[in-house]
Amino acid sequence: MNAFGQSLLPGAAHQLFDDAALCRAFLDFESALAEAQASEGLIPVEAAEAIAAACAATQLDAHTLAGEARHGGAMAVPLVAMIAATLEQREEAHAVRYLHFGATTQDVVDTAQVLMTKQALAQLLAPLEQCITLLRDQAARHARTPMLARTLLQPAQIMSWGLKCASWLQPLQRSHAHLLALAEQALVLQLGGATGNQSALGEAGERIAARMAKQLGLGHAPSSWHTQRDAWLRFGLEVAVLMGSLSKIAKDLALLSQAEVGEVSEGAGASTAPNGSARGGSSAMPHKRNPVACMQAIAACAQGPGIAATLLSTMAQAHERGLGEWQAEVAVWPQLWIQAFGATSAVRDALSGLQVDTARMTRNIDNLQGLVHSEALTQALAAAVGKKPARARIQALGPLALSSETPLLQLLLTDTCVQALPEGPRTALQATLAAACDLDLVTEPSARLCKRLLEENHL
Amino acid sequence: MNAFGQSLLPGAAHQLFDDAALCRAFLDFESALAEAQASEGLIPVEAAEAIAAACAATQLDAHTLAGEARHGGAMAVPLVAMIAATLEQREEAHAVRYLHFGATTQDVVDTAQVLMTKQALAQLLAPLEQCITLLRDQAARHARTPMLARTLLQPAQIMSWGLKCASWLQPLQRSHAHLLALAEQALVLQLGGATGNQSALGEAGERIAARMAKQLGLGHAPSSWHTQRDAWLRFGLEVAVLMGSLSKIAKDLALLSQAEVGEVSEGAGASTAPNGSARGGSSAMPHKRNPVACMQAIAACAQGPGIAATLLSTMAQAHERGLGEWQAEVAVWPQLWIQAFGATSAVRDALSGLQVDTARMTRNIDNLQGLVHSEALTQALAAAVGKKPARARIQALGPLALSSETPLLQLLLTDTCVQALPEGPRTALQATLAAACDLDLVTEPSARLCKRLLEENHL
Amino acid sequence: MNAFGQSLLPGAAHQLFDDAALCRAFLDFESALAEAQASEGLIPVEAAEAIAAACAATQLDAHTLAGEARHGGAMAVPLVAMIAATLEQREEAHAVRYLHFGATTQDVVDTAQVLMTKQALAQLLAPLEQCITLLRDQAARHARTPMLARTLLQPAQIMSWGLKCASWLQPLQRSHAHLLALAEQALVLQLGGATGNQSALGEAGERIAARMAKQLGLGHAPSSWHTQRDAWLRFGLEVAVLMGSLSKIAKDLALLSQAEVGEVSEGAGASTAPNGSARGGSSAMPHKRNPVACMQAIAACAQGPGIAATLLSTMAQAHERGLGEWQAEVAVWPQLWIQAFGATSAVRDALSGLQVDTARMTRNIDNLQGLVHSEALTQALAAAVGKKPARARIQALGPLALSSETPLLQLLLTDTCVQALPEGPRTALQATLAAACDLDLVTEPSARLCKRLLEENHL
Amino acid sequence: MNAFGQSLLPGAAHQLFDDAALCRAFLDFESALAEAQASEGLIPVEAAEAIAAACAATQLDAHTLAGEARHGGAMAVPLVAMIAATLEQREEAHAVRYLHFGATTQDVVDTAQVLMTKQALAQLLAPLEQCITLLRDQAARHARTPMLARTLLQPAQIMSWGLKCASWLQPLQRSHAHLLALAEQALVLQLGGATGNQSALGEAGERIAARMAKQLGLGHAPSSWHTQRDAWLRFGLEVAVLMGSLSKIAKDLALLSQAEVGEVSEGAGASTAPNGSARGGSSAMPHKRNPVACMQAIAACAQGPGIAATLLSTMAQAHERGLGEWQAEVAVWPQLWIQAFGATSAVRDALSGLQVDTARMTRNIDNLQGLVHSEALTQALAAAVGKKPARARIQALGPLALSSETPLLQLLLTDTCVQALPEGPRTALQATLAAACDLDLVTEPSARLCKRLLEENHL
Repeated sequence: MNAFGQSLLPGAAHQLFDDAALCRAFLDFESALAEAQASEGLIPVEAAEAIAAACAATQLDAHTLAGEARHGGAMAVPLVAMIAATLEQREEAHAVRYLHFGATTQDVVDTAQVLMTKQALAQLLAPLEQCITLLRDQAARHARTPMLARTLLQPAQIMSWGLKCASWLQPLQRSHAHLLALAEQALVLQLGGATGNQSALGEAGERIAARMAKQLGLGHAPSSWHTQRDAWLRFGLEVAVLMGSLSKIAKDLALLSQAEVGEVSEGAGASTAPNGSARGGSSAMPHKRNPVACMQAIAACAQGPGIAATLLSTMAQAHERGLGEWQAEVAVWPQLWIQAFGATSAVRDALSGLQVDTARMTRNIDNLQGLVHSEALTQALAAAVGKKPARARIQALGPLALSSETPLLQLLLTDTCVQALPEGPRTALQATLAAACDLDLVTEPSARLCKRLLEENHL
Repeated sequence: MNAFGQSLLPGAAHQLFDDAALCRAFLDFESALAEAQASEGLIPVEAAEAIAAACAATQLDAHTLAGEARHGGAMAVPLVAMIAATLEQREEAHAVRYLHFGATTQDVVDTAQVLMTKQALAQLLAPLEQCITLLRDQAARHARTPMLARTLLQPAQIMSWGLKCASWLQPLQRSHAHLLALAEQALVLQLGGATGNQSALGEAGERIAARMAKQLGLGHAPSSWHTQRDAWLRFGLEVAVLMGSLSKIAKDLALLSQAEVGEVSEGAGASTAPNGSARGGSSAMPHKRNPVACMQAIAACAQGPGIAATLLSTMAQAHERGLGEWQAEVAVWPQLWIQAFGATSAVRDALSGLQVDTARMTRNIDNLQGLVHSEALTQALAAAVGKKPARARIQALGPLALSSETPLLQLLLTDTCVQALPEGPRTALQATLAAACDLDLVTEPSARLCKRLLEENHL
Repeated sequence: MNAFGQSLLPGAAHQLFDDAALCRAFLDFESALAEAQASEGLIPVEAAEAIAAACAATQLDAHTLAGEARHGGAMAVPLVAMIAATLEQREEAHAVRYLHFGATTQDVVDTAQVLMTKQALAQLLAPLEQCITLLRDQAARHARTPMLARTLLQPAQIMSWGLKCASWLQPLQRSHAHLLALAEQALVLQLGGATGNQSALGEAGERIAARMAKQLGLGHAPSSWHTQRDAWLRFGLEVAVLMGSLSKIAKDLALLSQAEVGEVSEGAGASTAPNGSARGGSSAMPHKRNPVACMQAIAACAQGPGIAATLLSTMAQAHERGLGEWQAEVAVWPQLWIQAFGATSAVRDALSGLQVDTARMTRNIDNLQGLVHSEALTQALAAAVGKKPARARIQALGPLALSSETPLLQLLLTDTCVQALPEGPRTALQATLAAACDLDLVTEPSARLCKRLLEENHL
Repeated sequence: MNAFGQSLLPGAAHQLFDDAALCRAFLDFESALAEAQASEGLIPVEAAEAIAAACAATQLDAHTLAGEARHGGAMAVPLVAMIAATLEQREEAHAVRYLHFGATTQDVVDTAQVLMTKQALAQLLAPLEQCITLLRDQAARHARTPMLARTLLQPAQIMSWGLKCASWLQPLQRSHAHLLALAEQALVLQLGGATGNQSALGEAGERIAARMAKQLGLGHAPSSWHTQRDAWLRFGLEVAVLMGSLSKIAKDLALLSQAEVGEVSEGAGASTAPNGSARGGSSAMPHKRNPVACMQAIAACAQGPGIAATLLSTMAQAHERGLGEWQAEVAVWPQLWIQAFGATSAVRDALSGLQVDTARMTRNIDNLQGLVHSEALTQALAAAVGKKPARARIQALGPLALSSETPLLQLLLTDTCVQALPEGPRTALQATLAAACDLDLVTEPSARLCKRLLEENHL
């Protein structure tokens, strides 16, 4: 990924699944395999010790690994050759024949992918938990701060900013819980041998696998999963779902940040970059304050559905090892996590410095002259004059309220349909109509729901 | 979907999510809403009774519903008008104002989708459970039936047909369990009102929702989920994962069915269709026996990744109701279930009549002259002569075995590298080499794993 | 597709690729095949006449076709049987053996798909051409109507509404031209026989194909294209590109329609639907005026990328007929066209009644107090005081202009950095600064570009 | 991309779109912009010369560029700062204010992408042309080499290996032609300024753009294309189509390479890698000869549909610059070309060393005992005994031929249905039946078509 791609992601993103992590994981696998086999008496203890020491001492050359695997098709061949070379240099050639014993390329590559994914999950959870905390704080603080609810990009009724934040919060909490639960089934060792049945390991296979898994900090699947990758995919798809939930937050924030709406804006962050440029500044338009973090989140999330489709399309892996499908899955998988880490970090950035203009929220409500209370006004009026006439009257007065910049309530209170009522019902109706437009009262259902959501859900 | 698309699916598929189901669900929603509101004192009991009776009596005209919703954009408007017309015909006009009270189009459409999805899940689980049973039977019966394991579409080593079936089985069992678990969170009522906060229902909102959910046989979410659709998507993605697992089975079966492999074939099913055509017959080639069920499964599964991508891409639903994203999700969702039902039924069909040619499995092994035992032979030889020489020898003799149609074991027993050993080690080595090629012994690890998988996993 | 899906599409959409069209195309194929073969002497003229008459007389039962093809896997088998039954009823059994001679299921299914696609193209081009005309009209009329250009959802500089329309227009014109050009290569007969080489037709194959193609109003490919479907896919992908271009128009219109922006709105269309509901009305919020056509366009376009991915993923069709990949492509293809027709019609609807509020466009500019002229003001100031000081000054005054609701120009003219200049340069600078904020002058580049685009591009 | 991903791609792939190419293109853009502006009198010639010299002298630090763009959101800001720093070091500070004049970040980033894509196209065309040559050679040499045609993975009839190659060839030739044609419209300069209308460049804008385009070796679009990216997408989608066509070749080759089919195999390439491993060798199974190049092609092509979906989904770029959609497109685009280059190179590798076993092709035909001639035999028999009896007889004798390992022709010649005929018709029929099974005759239609395809299509 070149500098443009990197500029959309946190600086730490490029270390996820990089060559250093891959090579470390390769060596950890071979070392743990030998040690587990020695513990079960399958290979000599001295051989395992020599292999572990050689793995610790070997500096794998990723470029050469790639080059030889490109030629031969099997990454384990040059990997084993490099460790064997170390063994020979260390005069431990006796151990070479026990290297990688009973394992296959897919075992070491899949396990390395799992190990790197475990790190990626930890990286991802940090900003995700920050998002959750930030949203809980906003929701708690603003449970009764009125703002426009908008449907089909049009103002609809009143909700609260706190409820909006509490609503964004729910899917993040659910994804957090699902990621942890699915990790149990997905972050597991791969050890199947040539065709998945551990045939070279004999009856000790299960025990070796259990030891290795423990040593590597991984779970232990009931069998190898060379071509049965549903648990792995399910885990990845949860990441794609998280990206979907994040994309909604970023989109909403960007819409609220429009100059014409102006209810929130991303903070300026550290006031200046090293070269003096302001966050969100434009090279051509000095006045611009762009929602950069939202942009980065949306750019990252835009890649989720396509990656998910590619991963799903690789599931038809032929027989006991796919021809290309497996390799494609392994090659694409890192992008999912890298972009998800980017998206989560970007939403965290957007939320952490968020400037919320509650006065503008109220002004945007007021600008609509009370039309957003139409449903409640119609209901109140309908109780007095019937549903159809009520609806017709509200529809007639709405445009007038806007064009005359007069609150709909004011028009309604003096409208003939109300004035024509006898005094008692009229006074009662007028009170009901006024209550329907009282922002405090109207925000109450949102405040109630907001609080309930905060109580029910905790990490 | 025209007759071509229908020809790839079970006959029952076209009833999933059809107009009859949709209209029934619409009416059930409105009826349950009124009844729950009456129980909570929000509307008069007589109104609720009148509405329930009208819903029972109304024959919705789906074509008109579509036409008016196309014009107005909101499906609930013509729906409510049609029920109101029934009320008026039944001289229950008093109840009209209580119809659809406090609800919005998305409430009734989403809940209808949930109700239809609940039916689709039931439809899907039936053939899925049959697949599981059929695979368990094959696995139990053939735990030690040897067959070639194949990697990268090349023969690799020996496994058993039972293990292959047990391996196919695992993801189906996992998907079955996940579908049931996720259904708890996904098959829930939608009732949020205009903007999701149940503002028109007052404090009774939660209780009304709980009553409605119970009445409709659905779960009850902590809040409405108009634009927080992660639980819904997660459920759908599990269906896509299932399709991925099914596509692998269908692909493997089709590969094994190739005339040149010939290890399995789809049964002929009912011997003839009404017009006398045989299952899998060709219009141009009377001798053909095509794997029709596998074809149907693959055709259905091919649609999974694209549908999943579309669904994921709709998650960024703006504010309190998406502009197009929600509608796209609702429109695409049925395809996921219809194709999954098709795929599951087709795999069930393929498995239920499957003809397994175990003799051909053995013949295909024999044709390779023992090259598939190379790993074990190399290991055995390496213990006697060292890893590199052993590997070199096996690589040299392999092609000779094939060209001379002589088993590799036979060549090896008489090879100088073996003959050169002293008698004791030679005899021992010869025994080890022979054991490495003994099909019974070689199948043992697969049989063991197969049995363990069958014991550990039960529905 | 149930009523909900239908409600997002034009009423005519459900006839595209429906059973009636499919059956008609099937019969046309068989009839044309027989006639062409008779003309080339391959079959008796009387047989061809009998077949043509039988095809004209046969009412295919799509349900039965689907059912038998589901069983047998080959649509042509029941199709031929039904025509044969007609022949027998008409006492023309002699012709049965010449029916479908030398053809295969894929020939008739693919050709039917081509024939239906030709109709779908015609359906699609009508609203597309209307969009082009509507946009040309808007662009011509509003070449110099100033409006905000917006980047990253923030106001940037000034453009014209005409240029915006002319920009939307370009991709539609290009897609129109590409669709017509690609149709030449894609709307071609399929006639390959069992395995694509027309082996049963002998040397007359090419001439028969040419005659058939002409009779059916189709082009004639250099060979059959059973599993080489690039020209077909390329045609379909152009439809997906068109949907992408339409989605941009719909999204822009929806953003401009936001109440807080208010620069355009969809017309109310026919004032009322049969039941009195207004276009874009809400069931819960009587005041709402939703951008229904934009919503429908976005909902349709959201399905494009996923469908394109599915189609592309079917290209690896094994050998001489794919196992499931071909069938999936055929099954999914109609969705592409139906949704594209829906999207194009919806954008046409949005544009045809579009209400453009040019006063609001100007007001939205004015509300920004001239900050959108920052680049030009900075350039002008930089010429007098240097780039960095100029930029710093503008960045300082911008927020003040907004908070004090005073035009930036006014602040700048009286700013010390300008006042400090000697009179001559000061006066010149003040004139330049004023010109930089003159809406007429500032709109000029957009007007010029708009006109050039209208001149250069014509259908 | 780590070593695993790299191992699936040619060594040269990682240079496509890398930081070196990106930085070079950035500097070329700024240099060409200044020179064109000086030529048109917009900026001083000395300034342009100083800028060009500074661009030549500047070593951009990609890591810093990414870091600052990540903070500020606009890549051009740090880019311009770095060039400005060089100008100041060279005591040419006077030119700083003319740097990047009238341009915006998207101009320089898009143009850099175009320049890198031009290089990627050249890289891609080389192996593509080699594939075309290799296939033409095979097709010419083997126009009449009989092999099984296979439909739905089952043997169908006879075709020739040459026709198979000629069929694979067609889409590659078409994609080659389309790539060149679309490059004209896609490899064009981006120069729109802040909002796409070149407002800062005045009337010279068009001429400046024309000069720049010529200087950079690019085409010149009628206007900037900041958010109208259809021509660009169309170009990219042709690459996705090419990948689809390549995936079919790779899949077919892999299927033909199965040990049980054995009609082709990938050559061993250079006999050994540096470490002695054979191409296609397995770490666990020394006898394996894996179709490594096909695997690499399939792994690369598997990513095409998902990438295409992502690119298409970014087309709804809001207003005059997208918020995230543009950035996602730019970030994902390189993957398309890198994977396509990988796929094309891998198919070239597979074809260039391909070992074709024509004897095995014949043996695989013979193993089917003539059942593949069923259509022709049925036709011949039908002429003598009627269509239904003929079909029934062939269907009855087919299984017998297989089980008795007797050619179907032989069974048929002595079958009662033939023997019952009078001598004259019988003799004639027997001759026709024999001709229907004559491999030379049967291959003739394929040979004819193969030759025609080779004649009609030339690069």
